[in-house]
Amino acid sequence: MHNSENHTDSVPDDSLLAAIDLGSNSFHIVVARLSQGELSTVDIMSEKVQLGAGIGPDKKLSCEAMERGLSCLSRFSQLLSDLPHDAVKIVATNALREAANRYTFTEQAEKILGIPIEIIAGREEARLIYLGVSHTLANTTGARLVIDIGGGSTECIIGEHFEPLEMESLHMGCVSYTRRFFSDGRINEKNFKHAEHAAMRELLSIRERYKKAGWATSVGSSGTIKAIKNACIASGFSEERITRKGLEQLKKQILTFDTLSELDIDGVKAERAAILPAGLAILIALFQSLKIEEMTFSDGALREGLLYDMAGRLRHEDIRERSISALMKRYHVDEAHAQRVEHTALAALAQVNKAWGLTSPSHQEMLSWATRTHEIGLTIAHSQYHKHSAYLLQHSDLAGFTKSEQQLLAFLVRGNRRKFPKGDYKQLPERRKDAYKRLCVLLRLSVILHRSRNASALPAFTLKADGKKLNLNFAKGVLIEHPLTQADLEQEIDYLKNADIKLSIS
Amino acid sequence: MHNSENHTDSVPDDSLLAAIDLGSNSFHIVVARLSQGELSTVDIMSEKVQLGAGIGPDKKLSCEAMERGLSCLSRFSQLLSDLPHDAVKIVATNALREAANRYTFTEQAEKILGIPIEIIAGREEARLIYLGVSHTLANTTGARLVIDIGGGSTECIIGEHFEPLEMESLHMGCVSYTRRFFSDGRINEKNFKHAEHAAMRELLSIRERYKKAGWATSVGSSGTIKAIKNACIASGFSEERITRKGLEQLKKQILTFDTLSELDIDGVKAERAAILPAGLAILIALFQSLKIEEMTFSDGALREGLLYDMAGRLRHEDIRERSISALMKRYHVDEAHAQRVEHTALAALAQVNKAWGLTSPSHQEMLSWATRTHEIGLTIAHSQYHKHSAYLLQHSDLAGFTKSEQQLLAFLVRGNRRKFPKGDYKQLPERRKDAYKRLCVLLRLSVILHRSRNASALPAFTLKADGKKLNLNFAKGVLIEHPLTQADLEQEIDYLKNADIKLSIS
Repeated sequence: MHNSENHTDSVPDDSLLAAIDLGSNSFHIVVARLSQGELSTVDIMSEKVQLGAGIGPDKKLSCEAMERGLSCLSRFSQLLSDLPHDAVKIVATNALREAANRYTFTEQAEKILGIPIEIIAGREEARLIYLGVSHTLANTTGARLVIDIGGGSTECIIGEHFEPLEMESLHMGCVSYTRRFFSDGRINEKNFKHAEHAAMRELLSIRERYKKAGWATSVGSSGTIKAIKNACIASGFSEERITRKGLEQLKKQILTFDTLSELDIDGVKAERAAILPAGLAILIALFQSLKIEEMTFSDGALREGLLYDMAGRLRHEDIRERSISALMKRYHVDEAHAQRVEHTALAALAQVNKAWGLTSPSHQEMLSWATRTHEIGLTIAHSQYHKHSAYLLQHSDLAGFTKSEQQLLAFLVRGNRRKFPKGDYKQLPERRKDAYKRLCVLLRLSVILHRSRNASALPAFTLKADGKKLNLNFAKGVLIEHPLTQADLEQEIDYLKNADIKLSIS
Repeated sequence: MHNSENHTDSVPDDSLLAAIDLGSNSFHIVVARLSQGELSTVDIMSEKVQLGAGIGPDKKLSCEAMERGLSCLSRFSQLLSDLPHDAVKIVATNALREAANRYTFTEQAEKILGIPIEIIAGREEARLIYLGVSHTLANTTGARLVIDIGGGSTECIIGEHFEPLEMESLHMGCVSYTRRFFSDGRINEKNFKHAEHAAMRELLSIRERYKKAGWATSVGSSGTIKAIKNACIASGFSEERITRKGLEQLKKQILTFDTLSELDIDGVKAERAAILPAGLAILIALFQSLKIEEMTFSDGALREGLLYDMAGRLRHEDIRERSISALMKRYHVDEAHAQRVEHTALAALAQVNKAWGLTSPSHQEMLSWATRTHEIGLTIAHSQYHKHSAYLLQHSDLAGFTKSEQQLLAFLVRGNRRKFPKGDYKQLPERRKDAYKRLCVLLRLSVILHRSRNASALPAFTLKADGKKLNLNFAKGVLIEHPLTQADLEQEIDYLKNADIKLSIS
């Protein structure tokens, strides 16, 4: 197994890179541009080739399955035509690991692609999946369990930051289990049970070791887990996370259908429905066996891992800090000014965090990120730039941030000036409302205090909060020396009335 | 008069610049950042100080007026506190040109600001206004007339590209004319007539010379012309442009009020209403005297001219080309790819322009700009990037483009892939719909043909259009060699059905 630590940043800037993953269920291609150490996707395609389903009892890939695969690759190959060979990685996983006639397929495929195909081992697959997933997550401390249920194999990794600590590839997948346990096309308790039990037996090999290693959070990737997550959300079984109870409810819902071909589940594409029961059985076994309570989903996958492996990205960094820095750089933020606003906002937070219940580290982080990005929208236009900043925060690919974190950050920045954004405020999750309104107020005051974009020290101020009341106190004469600040603060009293905050200045 | 041709690009990149304009009606400040030769606004403020109204019969500024002015400048000064002296320009115009005690005011003002105030001559004011306005306009050929109605003077300039050819500052303004002709506070035909006649007499000095020089388009700037434009639009007297008929209708509407203090016009702020009749009388006189039929509005003004003068920007360039290039650079567009898509799109246009009525030069320009910017949204995220590209085109400060051009460009780019955007299509002006749907189709096909981002030559194709029908023809075997293109084109047939275009491939 090669070790990505040996890679260096040798790929020239602005290069295109491509990765193809010949999975047992689907083939995927991703083309990305490497720019200033950041990967940004240029094109993606996925086709449900079902190579795994084409392996017969003789362990040979059928002609039809090969045909489907080669036809898909002929389409993919058009996206590679101009890339240098070392900018493309093509890997194949379980289906080709298993197929006795694998080289018949890879030879023809290589003719089409012009690039060698690597059939990778399960543990290398696990390593690359972890690399792909960890680049989408906040670099929080604490170990994480990453699960990827493929067509022919399931990878289980425990890692911290960007480092995998335990890796295993288990011989179970949604395509192979559909063929083994749902071959009669029927959906019933018996088929489910057989599939779950088989998966539990597979898991015996890692259960004790993994439970001993332990983890703080668990994350799923792969199309199967995504489909399960979407089905649970669409039917109201769970919100953002997959829960044990949600899985049981989904299973009950699936059991109301008689056959795989009738299966019709909200949130799941028709073409994926038939392999959902087997995938669900595997996930239920994982939850039971490893005592998982809930699982988030990550879009990162093997193919992203391949790209990061090629790009040789640095590790041991906070991916969210990196994402914020990249945003600031991309949109030419005045860093000195942002730093001053940040400094004042954090000083303000320190004065009221207890009174206003803003003591969680995440409050401080989010306020700090908001100060650093509140002006990114200026690159679009000065007019309404707070809205442009919010648009960028909400829609950008920000590695390490969840969609709800991006929404909260966008809210803070949206509210950094002018009227308090009541409409956006109403969209926030109920339990976040109070805290984020208050953080927004602190951001607003810091922005006002630095409107002169001045490097000289800000006059000291005292901030006192008490429920809806907030008092801002300066030494005598300070406001007379800063008439713009005074005018802005008087206006702010009005604006904050609308947010049900009674600001007083003294 | 100093000559801006002597300026060089000596201002270091990423500098902040500020310009303050002490007008007879309002004081304005704009702070902008110079980055890669582009100015982007960081902060703006305007206050209605009405310095001109504070000049008594003894030609002296009253104490109250000075007080208002100094109090405003103390707020402005906070925005300057960290800027080097040579990054700030402060100019005063007619009110201070006239006030006998001007230096009493400027001395105190300079103490507050720390920077000398230049009281500029009317022709220098005209030159700077033209510089500010011309940087907001497309660099079309043909002379343009630029009119700016200030509080105490009105500037009339004829220029081409960035070069003023005729410049004059006339002794009439909305504040001074309100005092002269509406001093009884009443609105009636008589007061209007006196004001119009006085303005006509002023214009005698330039009328023949200007009419002889001639112009192709006329453009207004200043708060007065903006208010008149907004009033005409709000009451449905005209659309985007100010017309002679619209002015007459607005006058009729104003005449339904008895006094200036009662005046309440849709689209006009209360604080500006009282000086609107005098401003309108001046504009009506300009339309009559110079035989103007219609006038567009530009946001550029004296203060922007000051900034461009400081930045020493290059001239004789197409400002729209420059804006598009700046966008491409800012959002890291793959230029080689964009160029290939552009080349194909223009080749496609050349084949169907007659059949589809796309023969105007603007059709070619807009299609070309759309090809160059369709991928700018990739910088935000690959997912839904066509929407992000459209957002950026719609909301960015794009010098030289009108808001409706930005909307059309955003539409083309929004529709470059995936479903045809029917909702946005419905928003287009009726008379643009057919042409822009067809341009969008040409863009889509060019994007599909270049999906492989390949430098090698595209196979030749023939395009034939006939009403709703479009036939795309390749040499035999080409599509078999390009299976991705074939798959994409088959999908495109479906997409275009939804746009009521019948695409056939042969």
